[in-house]
Amino acid sequence: MLIRKTDPATTTPVEMDGVKDVTMQVMVGRADGAPNFASRHFVVQPGGHTPHHSHDYEHEVYIIEGEGQAECDGETRTVQAGDMLYVPANAVHQFRNESDADFRFLCLVPVTFDCDKPVPGS
Amino acid sequence: MLIRKTDPATTTPVEMDGVKDVTMQVMVGRADGAPNFASRHFVVQPGGHTPHHSHDYEHEVYIIEGEGQAECDGETRTVQAGDMLYVPANAVHQFRNESDADFRFLCLVPVTFDCDKPVPGS
Repeated sequence: MLIRKTDPATTTPVEMDGVKDVTMQVMVGRADGAPNFASRHFVVQPGGHTPHHSHDYEHEVYIIEGEGQAECDGETRTVQAGDMLYVPANAVHQFRNESDADFRFLCLVPVTFDCDKPVPGS
Repeated sequence: MLIRKTDPATTTPVEMDGVKDVTMQVMVGRADGAPNFASRHFVVQPGGHTPHHSHDYEHEVYIIEGEGQAECDGETRTVQAGDMLYVPANAVHQFRNESDADFRFLCLVPVTFDCDKPVPGS
């Protein structure tokens, strides 16, 4: 049985257009043999954000710690530790941290999309 | 965008052979249109446990709160808030709470298995 701790210290910077001060770690993914979906741990530092983008696969997101802004198709909501979010495929979305503490979440994705292409970061 | 709080008060008892003092809520699942995988919130009360069983789909599990025993194919490990687990398909597994406080986790499953049968509780 694979057990890994979600630890900000073992995340690495996300290098991607439109990203600011975000690190991540794949907790369970393709490299572990996960056949259907992957669990990734994200840390958004104060003032940081994920890209404002869309793609044709969904996210399920669990907020682990802190508070952030979740934007989805033009609607922005403040989300907090304990919240679970569903971002449907093709929705334009972004996560921002306007607080002064780390904002951490799990972001879950299918491991493949579009006829078996690997999902980036899965 | 769907946002739901993981709240023990909105979970309901799991009625299943081999289960003791466990409640759950589907946070994002088939009823929400999730096409690939479902996120479920489980609360295991002190002394409670999930069934000792196996099935031909995997779990990815994130421990939200407390401490419990995770058994998988004969190996038992103590897991705590912040741990992420991977239980492969067909592994015999069980989660037990031997502490005196609630043990809470997210358990993620694919929504279908075995040629498009719906996964129970997805």
